[in-house]
Amino acid sequence: MTATITGASLIGFDDVIGSGGTFRGIDPATGAALEPAFGESGADEVARAAALAWDAFHSYRHTTPEVRAAFLESIADEIEAVAAELSERVQAETGLPAGRVAGETGRTTGQLRLFASVVRDGSWSQARIDPGNPDRTPLPKPDVRQRSVPLGPVAVFGASNFPLAFSVAGGDTASALASGSPVVVKGHPAHPGTSEIVGRAIRAAVRKHELHEGTFSLLVGTSNELGGALVSDPRIRAVGFTGSRRGGLALVELAARREIPIPVYAEMSAVNPVVVLPAALAERGSSIAAGFVTSVTGSAGQLCTKPGLLFVLDGPDVDAFRSVAEEALAGVAAAPMLNPGIAGAYESGVADVLATGVERAAEGVPSETISCAGTASLFVTDGSTFLTDPPLHEEVFGPASVIVRVRDEEQLLEIVDGLEGQLTATIHADEDDHPLAARLVDRLELVAGRVLFNGWPTGVEVGHAMVHGGPFPATSAPATTSVGTRAIERFLRPVAYQDTPDALLPDEIRAGNPLGIFRRVDGLPEQS
Amino acid sequence: MTATITGASLIGFDDVIGSGGTFRGIDPATGAALEPAFGESGADEVARAAALAWDAFHSYRHTTPEVRAAFLESIADEIEAVAAELSERVQAETGLPAGRVAGETGRTTGQLRLFASVVRDGSWSQARIDPGNPDRTPLPKPDVRQRSVPLGPVAVFGASNFPLAFSVAGGDTASALASGSPVVVKGHPAHPGTSEIVGRAIRAAVRKHELHEGTFSLLVGTSNELGGALVSDPRIRAVGFTGSRRGGLALVELAARREIPIPVYAEMSAVNPVVVLPAALAERGSSIAAGFVTSVTGSAGQLCTKPGLLFVLDGPDVDAFRSVAEEALAGVAAAPMLNPGIAGAYESGVADVLATGVERAAEGVPSETISCAGTASLFVTDGSTFLTDPPLHEEVFGPASVIVRVRDEEQLLEIVDGLEGQLTATIHADEDDHPLAARLVDRLELVAGRVLFNGWPTGVEVGHAMVHGGPFPATSAPATTSVGTRAIERFLRPVAYQDTPDALLPDEIRAGNPLGIFRRVDGLPEQS
Repeated sequence: MTATITGASLIGFDDVIGSGGTFRGIDPATGAALEPAFGESGADEVARAAALAWDAFHSYRHTTPEVRAAFLESIADEIEAVAAELSERVQAETGLPAGRVAGETGRTTGQLRLFASVVRDGSWSQARIDPGNPDRTPLPKPDVRQRSVPLGPVAVFGASNFPLAFSVAGGDTASALASGSPVVVKGHPAHPGTSEIVGRAIRAAVRKHELHEGTFSLLVGTSNELGGALVSDPRIRAVGFTGSRRGGLALVELAARREIPIPVYAEMSAVNPVVVLPAALAERGSSIAAGFVTSVTGSAGQLCTKPGLLFVLDGPDVDAFRSVAEEALAGVAAAPMLNPGIAGAYESGVADVLATGVERAAEGVPSETISCAGTASLFVTDGSTFLTDPPLHEEVFGPASVIVRVRDEEQLLEIVDGLEGQLTATIHADEDDHPLAARLVDRLELVAGRVLFNGWPTGVEVGHAMVHGGPFPATSAPATTSVGTRAIERFLRPVAYQDTPDALLPDEIRAGNPLGIFRRVDGLPEQS
Repeated sequence: MTATITGASLIGFDDVIGSGGTFRGIDPATGAALEPAFGESGADEVARAAALAWDAFHSYRHTTPEVRAAFLESIADEIEAVAAELSERVQAETGLPAGRVAGETGRTTGQLRLFASVVRDGSWSQARIDPGNPDRTPLPKPDVRQRSVPLGPVAVFGASNFPLAFSVAGGDTASALASGSPVVVKGHPAHPGTSEIVGRAIRAAVRKHELHEGTFSLLVGTSNELGGALVSDPRIRAVGFTGSRRGGLALVELAARREIPIPVYAEMSAVNPVVVLPAALAERGSSIAAGFVTSVTGSAGQLCTKPGLLFVLDGPDVDAFRSVAEEALAGVAAAPMLNPGIAGAYESGVADVLATGVERAAEGVPSETISCAGTASLFVTDGSTFLTDPPLHEEVFGPASVIVRVRDEEQLLEIVDGLEGQLTATIHADEDDHPLAARLVDRLELVAGRVLFNGWPTGVEVGHAMVHGGPFPATSAPATTSVGTRAIERFLRPVAYQDTPDALLPDEIRAGNPLGIFRRVDGLPEQS
């Protein structure tokens, strides 16, 4: 197969070159503009895509689980069929290395296939049956059954830092399509060619399964107005977003101002604190330091879960730990950042940290040749300074992190209690550290969506138990996850059916369990 | 036992007479002010109650399921111990008849005991385990486990129309306490004595189980500022509300403006459309008409699920149906409404309908003696008028409803497609009506939280499958329910634990399943 990039938005089965001017992808390594030019989509294209999606909703939501599962699997197949050209384009548009792109491609197709299995399994429907009892006194007990219905067309905003796994066919799209909701993607303008290749793969799968063309559309453009129009369209019923806090909060506000407000699932920002406890530090400080630097600098630090803060209790082992980390980081060559905007924001973020007077303990190897290079930075400060310097609490998106030497346990707990909502929090602890680790878990589970031990938060495992979420401002919807199978729940709503004739019930809750799914009867798992 | 009413707010174990002036309950049947006077609580009392709740959260969330379950059961016991005096006070403050109060008391204690069983069952925790695999290539697979944690202190706003079941110890309180979240109730000012009696029952249970006194507080007052201060307090982490659209939306806006926004679960309003299809009308029109009037006028129409609209396809059986309904309604004696404010709003709502020029087909028997009497009204109009008259789409809270004669199926579907979000939608249909009924279910499940057949939406069954919720503006959180066991989910958030030593894991997800709860392993129910 040959992937085609034409510069179009994909509105149902139509290729539409937006009429609002043109833009191009940029190779962040060279600064060169890439062919072809893309047409800026605007309000007209949003209205067309949303109308098609709304039309499609009425048939798509009634597709059988098997049809939706096969559709998701076909998207994965279609992506794999163009993997070579896709990889080339992703690298050109994002500067991410081939290995990372291969891994992310696998994660993307893996997510699609995982959601296919979720759809077939059917427990997402939360089917529940409370049988009636006409003889109950003083009033007969009605028969009440519950299942979930999809919300309707979902707007998905592609993320810059996951051009595949959190973009056009990423986790938000996979989970929305799994739920029975059509999807309109606003592709991230930094990787429009990648978006179009993947969009065409989804379209091929739509055709293959003879679904309504409005099941999927892709809009490309650079303006905030495009995204705003999409979120404000009355036919859009939910929003999935991964990106900056400012961008996420703007969408939340727009969605709340609609005549009928809709949920915005925005994964926004985090500094992902790490705490290294004394026994672990003494026992394996060097390997922790090395792992830390790898986690901070991988993908040029452009991961939502990059550890931006590492707390260590001051003591005799800290200097050695610091030295290993500094030496490792000093050897990290600058890598291209995703785009000029992110490279610029990284530079000013680093400057803000420097402006606090905090010591820069190490710097990576700068690049003479890469256009949007991000040079790693490691800062070191102490707990008292951290507590009083707000810029140190903020995410710097890129390969930078801060080691904080904390005076004692009391100061550590004070710091932890003052943390903002986080996607992750990590503890390095050995057996002797467990008493303090237990106190930290107790606090960190209120701060973060995921607490991990003796590892690194980057590299989010996609599974059934994963939570990629967390208290505000990490996300706008702390009760949800955007990675893992429970992500489907974001696009569902429960409906109860009371005393409904069996012939008029949806399959999930009919007598005899025709879909063979997990159900609860009077609250307990149904015995088959 | 003797119930005590002192006029105080109950802040932890302290009785606090708010210093912002006084107010009294009013007997709506006589207009008489009831003793004692209550002290208006304000910002100081909110801060005290919220601080105590936040303190309590740290121990209360760690109580075992058995302790929380026994606590909920003790609240039910304590309420039953004062049932006689409680009933008297409820009747005096709300005008609701003894039978309704007895039923509501049973529902309230039943809800508390149901949530006790939910807490013990443990499936609310959504425990999930994805075992690790150190040998996986290219990267080892981490061990990831998920469980739910409570959000923190919940503000509950008592509803005027359910002085027990959706007030101080109502569904919101029961589900929040079940989740491990302390509760601060803002009692509805129309039943302050009822609130205090129930608040003291909860306090007795707090003492009995030696829980932190901040686990429960009750604030009484009449000002909007009191509720606003509560929702804005940073220690409050979620809000449960049942009431008017204006009130609910005001809280949603306040909560969104906080530095850290919080969810507001507001159940706001609905007209609860009913559709009577031709075969059912022909077969049993009279009994449907009688049931309709009973549902409209019960509890003086002051139920969130009161059917405010009834659609019937025009035809030969409509006149007979109408006559029965008119005659039945004309025999309904005016009953006291909950309070002067609601009685006044009902009068102006009826006036708004009359102002559209719609025919009032029947009126109930007015009262010469009752102070806040609500006289039933039945209106009749046609589908075309309905489609063009917005006031006919709005809830009139009280014993009024509108019969709409619809031209044909096409017009019926047009009307249904234009409905706002609803708590319920009801279809009366016999076998011959099923083809049209199927088309209606297909639409109504997108409009309402509950679809029912051949019954009435009033009288919400409390169980595992019930959904009392629905699309905006019926609620502010359409993916949730405020009645039934899934109400607990509103106050929970998932957390993932990665590679966490077993000794540091919460019991829900430890090896060997020490709590014996339902869990999923790699997405499938765990085999014990």
